Amino acid sequence: MKTEENLSLLTDLYQLTMAQGYFQSQKLEPATFSLFIRSYPPNRSYFVAAGLSDVLQFLETFAVDAAGIDYLHSRRLFAEDFLDFLKGLRFTGEVRAIPEGRIFFKEEPVLEVTAPIIEAQIVETFIINQINLQSLIATKAARCVHAARGRAVVDFALRRTHGLDAGMKVARASYLAGFAGTSNVRAGQLYGIPIVGTMAHSFVSSFEKESDAFRAFVTSFPNNSILLIDTYDTLAGARKAVEIGKEMATRGQSLQGVRIDSGDLAKLAVAVRKIFDDAGLKTVRIIGSGGLDECDLADFSDANIPYDSYGVGTKMGVSADAPYFDMAYKLVESNGRPVLKLSAGKDSWPERKQVFRLCASGKLQKDLVALCDEDVAGAEPLLKKVMEHGAIAAPLPSLESIRATFLDEFARLPDSIKAIRNPATYPVEFTAKLQTLRLEIEKKVKRAE
Amino acid sequence: MKTEENLSLLTDLYQLTMAQGYFQSQKLEPATFSLFIRSYPPNRSYFVAAGLSDVLQFLETFAVDAAGIDYLHSRRLFAEDFLDFLKGLRFTGEVRAIPEGRIFFKEEPVLEVTAPIIEAQIVETFIINQINLQSLIATKAARCVHAARGRAVVDFALRRTHGLDAGMKVARASYLAGFAGTSNVRAGQLYGIPIVGTMAHSFVSSFEKESDAFRAFVTSFPNNSILLIDTYDTLAGARKAVEIGKEMATRGQSLQGVRIDSGDLAKLAVAVRKIFDDAGLKTVRIIGSGGLDECDLADFSDANIPYDSYGVGTKMGVSADAPYFDMAYKLVESNGRPVLKLSAGKDSWPERKQVFRLCASGKLQKDLVALCDEDVAGAEPLLKKVMEHGAIAAPLPSLESIRATFLDEFARLPDSIKAIRNPATYPVEFTAKLQTLRLEIEKKVKRAE
Repeated sequence: MKTEENLSLLTDLYQLTMAQGYFQSQKLEPATFSLFIRSYPPNRSYFVAAGLSDVLQFLETFAVDAAGIDYLHSRRLFAEDFLDFLKGLRFTGEVRAIPEGRIFFKEEPVLEVTAPIIEAQIVETFIINQINLQSLIATKAARCVHAARGRAVVDFALRRTHGLDAGMKVARASYLAGFAGTSNVRAGQLYGIPIVGTMAHSFVSSFEKESDAFRAFVTSFPNNSILLIDTYDTLAGARKAVEIGKEMATRGQSLQGVRIDSGDLAKLAVAVRKIFDDAGLKTVRIIGSGGLDECDLADFSDANIPYDSYGVGTKMGVSADAPYFDMAYKLVESNGRPVLKLSAGKDSWPERKQVFRLCASGKLQKDLVALCDEDVAGAEPLLKKVMEHGAIAAPLPSLESIRATFLDEFARLPDSIKAIRNPATYPVEFTAKLQTLRLEIEKKVKRAE
Repeated sequence: MKTEENLSLLTDLYQLTMAQGYFQSQKLEPATFSLFIRSYPPNRSYFVAAGLSDVLQFLETFAVDAAGIDYLHSRRLFAEDFLDFLKGLRFTGEVRAIPEGRIFFKEEPVLEVTAPIIEAQIVETFIINQINLQSLIATKAARCVHAARGRAVVDFALRRTHGLDAGMKVARASYLAGFAGTSNVRAGQLYGIPIVGTMAHSFVSSFEKESDAFRAFVTSFPNNSILLIDTYDTLAGARKAVEIGKEMATRGQSLQGVRIDSGDLAKLAVAVRKIFDDAGLKTVRIIGSGGLDECDLADFSDANIPYDSYGVGTKMGVSADAPYFDMAYKLVESNGRPVLKLSAGKDSWPERKQVFRLCASGKLQKDLVALCDEDVAGAEPLLKKVMEHGAIAAPLPSLESIRATFLDEFARLPDSIKAIRNPATYPVEFTAKLQTLRLEIEKKVKRAE
């Protein structure tokens, strides 16, 4: 319940033991760490950048408090002079990053931190935690939005997200990726996201009769009623909703919609649509929910199933088919010396980098990963300086503007890359200079070791 | 970053719209909701109860603050008199639950809330969010502990848990289920869990030579050094660690261990063990990490791979093979009337319940789900009253005592149920009285609707 009080110690112990190792070796030199995703999970060919705002706010306020220092002292692991140093430690470095809402690809640095090595090391855990989660969910949500082909999609995930912070970040990341709203009231309050909601089965079953429940609800919300019709029998529920809709019409009101949450969602939507159309209630919308993911939405789109919008919950909120990215934060430069690691399956590219994006006829065409000081004519450099000397370099963009950035770029991503199943691979190349450097460093390391 | 300030609005909008519906229909009567898991994910045949402490603390302090009321007011959805009512709303009900650390099975109520229906409804989202996550991770962690067969397992997941709250709860839930410690420093501070850590590849690559890095680290931590040996070449790294271990021996110190984090973890452990044994460094422990889950651990146990302990991260921390439970919170009684839902695949059992556990020769034998007022001779009733009139009924158990409860009961769960792959199904039966009631209510509902 109190996880948010002392974020600076939300780190892995080894960050602190290494920090003491650096401190006692008098390694206070600058270093650059690069954050990237090593590979695509199944059916992914792009990622949506998200989470940077939280990272920058964390870095700007980083400070281990007195209770934290006391706790570390009690562990009898750390030297007094190191704990004194840690007490005064603030993040004073530079961050370059691909802005939130932009699309990025595997092996591309989405963020680079340059700072005295201890500072850059200690913040690793938080940085990965937030950017991994928010990019994971933004990517999953983008797939849902794409699959729904213009139908609204809203976030119903809060009850099954992994904890409370995830509940908030899932609402934020899915809205960023084009969702129309969230059921999460607190996310509405904090982030300004539209909040949406219908009713649950318990409301229906708390009344002796289903139609009593429907009547009570539309009396409370004459302008905003979406009736849940599958508590007992969906088609019978639809016919009762028709009666309610007709009653409302006599009062000059109109029933907004109905929701179907179980059963054969495709068949039921067709049958329910017919019931309302036959009754002359063509404006009543049908909302689908209940274990949906982007594959279901794509199938419904293909088959023209008459849903007007979708609530997606659990499978989006935990990115069920790919619940993590293989995201890494690797040392690429230490005191001016380019470095890499060669661990099997976990190798890394040396040096500070820039990602260049080439477009053709308005569409994304190819990315080039380059050394930081290279220039690629006609290409857009994606990594921007967002923090300097430990201070946020420019006002953080609003969630609405991040969302607009995403929707604009997503429209320019080729459909083959956006495919829900078996997407094509977007071309990402490494410049000759970077490839040459990597070979050199590899040779040098192998000689030395 | 500020998700923890106003937990009372961490709920779905429909909880509030339904609350207004109940309020305006003057439905302030008591209701009971039952929390249960509908089905087992693949390779699961038991669940570990966790998350109750957080739920009870939330319920005891539930109150929508003034800023929350202002926000809801600004949505123009709610009636003034309802918002006045909401402002004064506190949780005044009763909670009966299976204690944390106990084992439970599908379809068994793990928690029941009895309260005025509005109170019981509004807190649904938080209750599911916390008990789903913590039970999910405790169950996954129990599988890891079982697969490791006595070798220590520690939590390395913080960087890839879904957000910060999950990072804390994963540390708590995995310790509860028998993990030896966590890398999460804040979880160590807040929950008193032992914290553990080694070093990262960046520490090694920040030095010009791997052995310089090893020397610097053991100088800083002469009694607590675990060297990461796979940055460049694992066997070469092991031989350097041997040199370091011998140097330490001349100073009367001893190298604690080495960690392998990539490559063929089984083959490498055998080769590294031989290198240390041949050098007379038999006490140097080998720690395995890098994408491990309980299946890997079971395979290593079967093959006697010489790991002394494991760090498990991502796959445990997101329960990668089963990232959610099909957990539901269903109305089972409304104003004294037993209720159920019949939605396809989402049906529920009516009425307040009790779960009875029968043991034989000290082993768990069978569970019986009964009506609340039934008695089963010789069986232990699992649901205990943990909250009354909105107040926690007894001091919350310590994490250590919850862990002891789990370890004791887990030892009494038959091995066939605990199997990592294709476990047997534990027998759970419903009493004749409960079955009869369900049939009656089903008939009644079908007649009425």
